[in-house]
Amino acid sequence: MHPKLLVTIAIWALAAATEPAAAQADLAGQVRRYREGHEVPIVRELVDFLALPNLATNLADIRANARHLVGMMERRGVAARILEADGAPPAVYGELLTPGATRTIVFYAHFDGQPVDSSKWRADPWRPVLRSGPLGPDVRDLPLTGVAGRFDPESRIFARSASDDKSPIVAMLVAIDALRAARVPLSVNLKFFLEGEEEAGSANLRTILTRHRDLLAADFWIFGDGPVHQTRAAQAVFGVRGVVGANLTVYGPIRPLHSGHYGNWAPNPNVMMVHLLASMRDAEGRITIPGFYDDVATLTPAEREALRGIPAVDRQLIGELRLGRTENAPASLAEQLALPALNLSGLAGGRAGAGGANLIGAESSAYLDLRLVPNQTIDRVMALIEGHIRRQGFHVVATPPDSATRVAHPKIALLTWSGGYPAARTGLDSPGARAMLAATDWLLGRPIIRVPTLGGSLPLADFVAVLGAQFAILPIVNHDNNQHGENENLRLQNLWDGIELYAGVLARMGREWHSVP
Amino acid sequence: MHPKLLVTIAIWALAAATEPAAAQADLAGQVRRYREGHEVPIVRELVDFLALPNLATNLADIRANARHLVGMMERRGVAARILEADGAPPAVYGELLTPGATRTIVFYAHFDGQPVDSSKWRADPWRPVLRSGPLGPDVRDLPLTGVAGRFDPESRIFARSASDDKSPIVAMLVAIDALRAARVPLSVNLKFFLEGEEEAGSANLRTILTRHRDLLAADFWIFGDGPVHQTRAAQAVFGVRGVVGANLTVYGPIRPLHSGHYGNWAPNPNVMMVHLLASMRDAEGRITIPGFYDDVATLTPAEREALRGIPAVDRQLIGELRLGRTENAPASLAEQLALPALNLSGLAGGRAGAGGANLIGAESSAYLDLRLVPNQTIDRVMALIEGHIRRQGFHVVATPPDSATRVAHPKIALLTWSGGYPAARTGLDSPGARAMLAATDWLLGRPIIRVPTLGGSLPLADFVAVLGAQFAILPIVNHDNNQHGENENLRLQNLWDGIELYAGVLARMGREWHSVP
Repeated sequence: MHPKLLVTIAIWALAAATEPAAAQADLAGQVRRYREGHEVPIVRELVDFLALPNLATNLADIRANARHLVGMMERRGVAARILEADGAPPAVYGELLTPGATRTIVFYAHFDGQPVDSSKWRADPWRPVLRSGPLGPDVRDLPLTGVAGRFDPESRIFARSASDDKSPIVAMLVAIDALRAARVPLSVNLKFFLEGEEEAGSANLRTILTRHRDLLAADFWIFGDGPVHQTRAAQAVFGVRGVVGANLTVYGPIRPLHSGHYGNWAPNPNVMMVHLLASMRDAEGRITIPGFYDDVATLTPAEREALRGIPAVDRQLIGELRLGRTENAPASLAEQLALPALNLSGLAGGRAGAGGANLIGAESSAYLDLRLVPNQTIDRVMALIEGHIRRQGFHVVATPPDSATRVAHPKIALLTWSGGYPAARTGLDSPGARAMLAATDWLLGRPIIRVPTLGGSLPLADFVAVLGAQFAILPIVNHDNNQHGENENLRLQNLWDGIELYAGVLARMGREWHSVP
Repeated sequence: MHPKLLVTIAIWALAAATEPAAAQADLAGQVRRYREGHEVPIVRELVDFLALPNLATNLADIRANARHLVGMMERRGVAARILEADGAPPAVYGELLTPGATRTIVFYAHFDGQPVDSSKWRADPWRPVLRSGPLGPDVRDLPLTGVAGRFDPESRIFARSASDDKSPIVAMLVAIDALRAARVPLSVNLKFFLEGEEEAGSANLRTILTRHRDLLAADFWIFGDGPVHQTRAAQAVFGVRGVVGANLTVYGPIRPLHSGHYGNWAPNPNVMMVHLLASMRDAEGRITIPGFYDDVATLTPAEREALRGIPAVDRQLIGELRLGRTENAPASLAEQLALPALNLSGLAGGRAGAGGANLIGAESSAYLDLRLVPNQTIDRVMALIEGHIRRQGFHVVATPPDSATRVAHPKIALLTWSGGYPAARTGLDSPGARAMLAATDWLLGRPIIRVPTLGGSLPLADFVAVLGAQFAILPIVNHDNNQHGENENLRLQNLWDGIELYAGVLARMGREWHSVP
């Protein structure tokens, strides 16, 4: 373990020792009792929020979500407003000042959701359904009205954004309610910054942050995005991988052709695509584009130490996911997530499966998402990918090729980029991180899991670049939530635990700040 | 040119010399005048036929087509009946005996159609639309009622099976009408054998042929399937490639995963798929599975000669299809179609395009159609493919793997086969082939294009194996018909020419038979 981490741990051990254990148990118990008495209205508030379609590509829907959010905050006395972004999906800002507080934190979550393939969902993605557990042969639908005012904590709400990210927002608002009911004051000034186009790549985030730099001034940011650890234990995360998406299309004949009459002669775009993609990475996760790893920062000894301290879940996950292997075995999940990745998310060309037809398609498409780590830049990664495609003999274009372009080049690739931001990381020993960790550990009664970097991505680099933000991610939702896929879901116990965790941070973090050097 | 071909050509040159040219011109003119006076009812009959959905997977639809066909034939005095196949899509048989005829031919076509992706069609695939030409910026819809009883011959009917294969059936029936109107007797006994599951792989064809062996006895078979030559000139084809389809699925985690939180660790099925497929063939059409070409019959000198005699359309097609290259250049289209092919018709895994999402999918699928040439057997090709997949490290299964199978094998491929039949070929110098060529050349006033083998596939091997059939394919539809793809269409001039060509065969082929040795 890194010496600074040891110091940190020593400090919260000291803090815990000087604080009567009864106070922690009391606050957690008070929040829990409040929640137990309000489960039906809490679920109702979440379900009403989830019923609003929230694709960032539909501005009207995002605006409806934003207005709804303002209402949810104003009901708590949080001063709320919509931060417009010139026709792009807006963000929502909220502010709750605490008399006497000297520190300010910002709570971040996004309220837009990933695109859906409705045909794969058990029900409409925006018609929330409560089910008895994860999808399986014995799962059954349950009434959203509960039984005698309570719900089975293992039951789950299925809807787009049930976990990513609408429930953390509800958890934070209910945490405020619970503290008020317990007459426990907040220890910090609390701001909300809720984004409306995260899943679409946050193209306007930097503009919004820059425009509202003063409004968003704070000592520390807490991000509610992402899942808890796969052991179901809470975790605090201090970094994220960057991400950029590449949309790739290669071309065959200008119209689909009968594979018998033209196959073997007219170029088959699916064949061009599989050879191109196979040249980019191997089956062990290693990216085979020359120079790709040149600017990848190697992990520090402290980071390696922290990685080793994360509970190993590989064996559990291998069983749960029915895996016969993992990539680059025996490297652990935590180690693999600290590396850059080229993920081949989507392939589509011609027709496969039940509707298979004997034809040479006119084009073949792929979607790649690239995960980046510190020191990699979006620009260099884009240049490396594009250069590699060129070296495979493709003429690279940014718009669909016209006839003259098609006949002039043996192989053509349309390459466009989606979103994109670099990785970001905050030191575990920064004052804000230490105050937050002291608060979470006090509430939990044990050290929260500390993760130097998340495998997933958030546009945190912009917060660092524009606001100089220090940050941690403090997620609450279950890891097995089908985030980004079909049948996304939230396990209710995760919502209950999240309310308590956030209440603990609000009640305690400002006090802990003064006891860290 | 092969010596036997020269003899054949000499014989029809002699036949043409002994037959007054006026008779040929007279018959073609009579048929043309009949057609010109009946264009609206001819198109109406075709359109009514096309309006019947005809996927072989829907038995009720195929039966409705069969009943409709029986009615079309009975209206001409053709004795017609449905040939049942124990719950599979039935075939339709018809018979028109000619007093004094000593030879019998069978006309074959199929009335089922390829699966459709309706979202890609300009209109419903089974709601026929007449348009002014191929789809393009200036194309416009035209009334199906014609103008003063006529149609622009360059206009096209768009519908599933407009070209593949419903219009050849209509052409043959209208040819009978036209000969009757001209009081020209048929020179042969004519039988019809119309199949209802060709596009689904003809699984029951052999059973039907075997069961009705006596009914289907004949001297020669004429197949109406396929397109005319790309120069728009008529062609007669004496062989086909075989075909077999492979459905392939490889597996990742049992549920979709967020690519950030699991990417680089959970195996990505799209990555496994592109590496597997890239190992099977190169971008030049060469199949890279060891041993694949071992039993491929090399072309005879005569076949090579015939291939060279086919008008070269490569340059025209390269422009029309906007190709920047062809596979295995400078090999010609005709040469490439005489080789076996592994065509990668479909790829599907995760999501690409506008709905792209950052995830690791649970599976990735591909559909391959393999085209076979003489001496290749379906069984050996299937064994080669399966063996190759095993050698790439996959455990091959025939049904989706259960959890125990998934965790027991690092890589799993589900491999299932669709349809499948070998190649077939008839000698150009067989008596029936020579009689037919004499008739077509007499009607056209010039030698029809002779093609030793078609690139596409028809279940002709079963006709050869069960009935000992000699055969030719005598297609009529335009080559640019989007057969098997979206917006399939028929150019009306092709229907008009087809009626004349078929009338010439019916009127003349029996007479020519006696003048060939």
